[in-house]
Amino acid sequence: MTHRISVELATTKRPKPDVSKIGFGSCFTDHMFMMDYDADKGWHSPQILPYQPIMMDPAAKVFHYGQTIFEGLKAYRTADGRILLFRPQQNLKRLNRSNERMSIPDVDEELALEALRQLVLVDQDWIPREEGTSLYIRPYVFATEPLLGVAPSRQYKFMIIMSPVGSYYAEGIHPVRIHVESEYVRAVAGGVGQAKTAGNYAAGLKAQEKASEQGYSQVLWLDGVHRKYIEEVGSMNVFFRIGDKVVTPELNGSILAGITRDSVIQMLGSWGVEVEQRRLSIEELFEAQEQGRLVEAFGTGTAAVISPVGELNWENRKIIIGEGRTGELSARLYNELTGIQRGELADPFGWVLELKGTVSATS
Amino acid sequence: MTHRISVELATTKRPKPDVSKIGFGSCFTDHMFMMDYDADKGWHSPQILPYQPIMMDPAAKVFHYGQTIFEGLKAYRTADGRILLFRPQQNLKRLNRSNERMSIPDVDEELALEALRQLVLVDQDWIPREEGTSLYIRPYVFATEPLLGVAPSRQYKFMIIMSPVGSYYAEGIHPVRIHVESEYVRAVAGGVGQAKTAGNYAAGLKAQEKASEQGYSQVLWLDGVHRKYIEEVGSMNVFFRIGDKVVTPELNGSILAGITRDSVIQMLGSWGVEVEQRRLSIEELFEAQEQGRLVEAFGTGTAAVISPVGELNWENRKIIIGEGRTGELSARLYNELTGIQRGELADPFGWVLELKGTVSATS
Repeated sequence: MTHRISVELATTKRPKPDVSKIGFGSCFTDHMFMMDYDADKGWHSPQILPYQPIMMDPAAKVFHYGQTIFEGLKAYRTADGRILLFRPQQNLKRLNRSNERMSIPDVDEELALEALRQLVLVDQDWIPREEGTSLYIRPYVFATEPLLGVAPSRQYKFMIIMSPVGSYYAEGIHPVRIHVESEYVRAVAGGVGQAKTAGNYAAGLKAQEKASEQGYSQVLWLDGVHRKYIEEVGSMNVFFRIGDKVVTPELNGSILAGITRDSVIQMLGSWGVEVEQRRLSIEELFEAQEQGRLVEAFGTGTAAVISPVGELNWENRKIIIGEGRTGELSARLYNELTGIQRGELADPFGWVLELKGTVSATS
Repeated sequence: MTHRISVELATTKRPKPDVSKIGFGSCFTDHMFMMDYDADKGWHSPQILPYQPIMMDPAAKVFHYGQTIFEGLKAYRTADGRILLFRPQQNLKRLNRSNERMSIPDVDEELALEALRQLVLVDQDWIPREEGTSLYIRPYVFATEPLLGVAPSRQYKFMIIMSPVGSYYAEGIHPVRIHVESEYVRAVAGGVGQAKTAGNYAAGLKAQEKASEQGYSQVLWLDGVHRKYIEEVGSMNVFFRIGDKVVTPELNGSILAGITRDSVIQMLGSWGVEVEQRRLSIEELFEAQEQGRLVEAFGTGTAAVISPVGELNWENRKIIIGEGRTGELSARLYNELTGIQRGELADPFGWVLELKGTVSATS
């Protein structure tokens, strides 16, 4: 099945930024994708058009009741000029899982992938070529019906915008200091923690501010029920190398099913490293440290890929992990994952999708 | 201190709807209030202008990270033509408490009250006069900075829109059937349940849909930790008359501090009825019913004021409360509260604020 996406090209192109000098997600490409949903028509009118402000009714439900979900992935330019996406189908599957939880109608994943493909190709000059850079892609859905009743919207927009991003580790990969949060909670089982929805991120801001004020770069979230089991770190999944195993919290309903998380689990398995997905308490972690068995820790996510953790502070108890240096597995995972993402290493898992072709304006 | 709010009047006025025939929050008045925030300028440019779509950058943070809060209150037209607001200062105090939790800058409550006053006066012809009708007022704040980094926005809009609403009980006050939710959770202590923020409402949609499919009109939420203590019903606070006392869940951090809730507690106190604010488990409630001590139940909120509960269904155990009829206290509270709100009864609590004067266009 082919999908007819209308394409209107920008008449003027904006200058490309120096990605080493801009912050994450601050500069957007010349085009965007947009598709509308109405309860009586379904999803309709898929289009690529020049990046531009959108008109919103002030009563649109997204402003009031937060019915919205998003995804994040990256396009990479290889040394030989090819364009690669990393497991985009997984993002689209998760997008629909998030939609389901938030009472938003499904998006056709085949159409969404075609939209991704065409949009990246249209703006392929925006994919930066410098080491460690990429084009960040943000698909998202939000409720637009202008109605204040608390009920699922009957109108939505599905959009994709893109932003060139510099190297996360321009000054070299370095472990971060993490504050273990005991007061605030990100999500709880039965809630929406496993959905990539706006409210989870809004809910985390206060603790993040508190951690930043105290000199920590991220928050480690504990579960909302017992306040003792590890959930996520900032907006990343988290892994700990304890003895000869790697442990990561199991997907319990309040943790996001990260695609980098899944890739790390598969990759470690292929190396013969045992990975346990289970409940892991903060006490167990501190005990493992005391016993000298906590070897390394790292977060996983689309932005950083692998983010080594060098320090944890929990209720004024501080531990330094791996002497504050990047661990062996962290470094190897980072190199192998980014190598596959950039087409520099073989892709035994079939993770990358090469985008080819050109896209012309429709008339 | 006077606040200079610029006023641009609509050149054409839209026809007023028959409020008995429109749904809640579907039709908006001729004008709206808008004020912008920039990190370097603070809140600025307060203005009343014709109701119209707003231009939003597709990267605006509200679409992605849900940093937004809102309030809801009503303006009433008395039989003798006066215009009354009910405890608007309480809404503005709560607005700033919500702002604080969501890392949104404070709004000047005095300016916000003046904005409410002027906007209602400009559109005073929109306040319906029929029995039980009112003008619903929706102040809200949302993040507008076009930046995908997960951090508090440096730009916001504070807006107020208004919608004439029909009588909640056009066919007479009637008790509703409630589904006690055991799978999904609305909020948890440490989260954002006590803030009037979008994500809480998005989080509740799925359970609401499930309840509706089973023929229930609302969900009763249990706490996210023990899954046994009563929190709210739909988006209302909830009260139970057990024996000679009235019990309502205490404000524990995951429950919204309703203004109608507070008014009911004060009013019951003035009648000599003892009100306990404490943890109340669903088991205790079902036991009280078995013992014949559960006399009545009702929800409280701005929309319905008092909403009697006639039936609870919890894991296939069903109880009928008060023989499914509106209870004595529910009826009296409804009559007294709405009587004060509409200026038909004396206001010993000093709750109503009369709006007077006219507003002209600024030049």
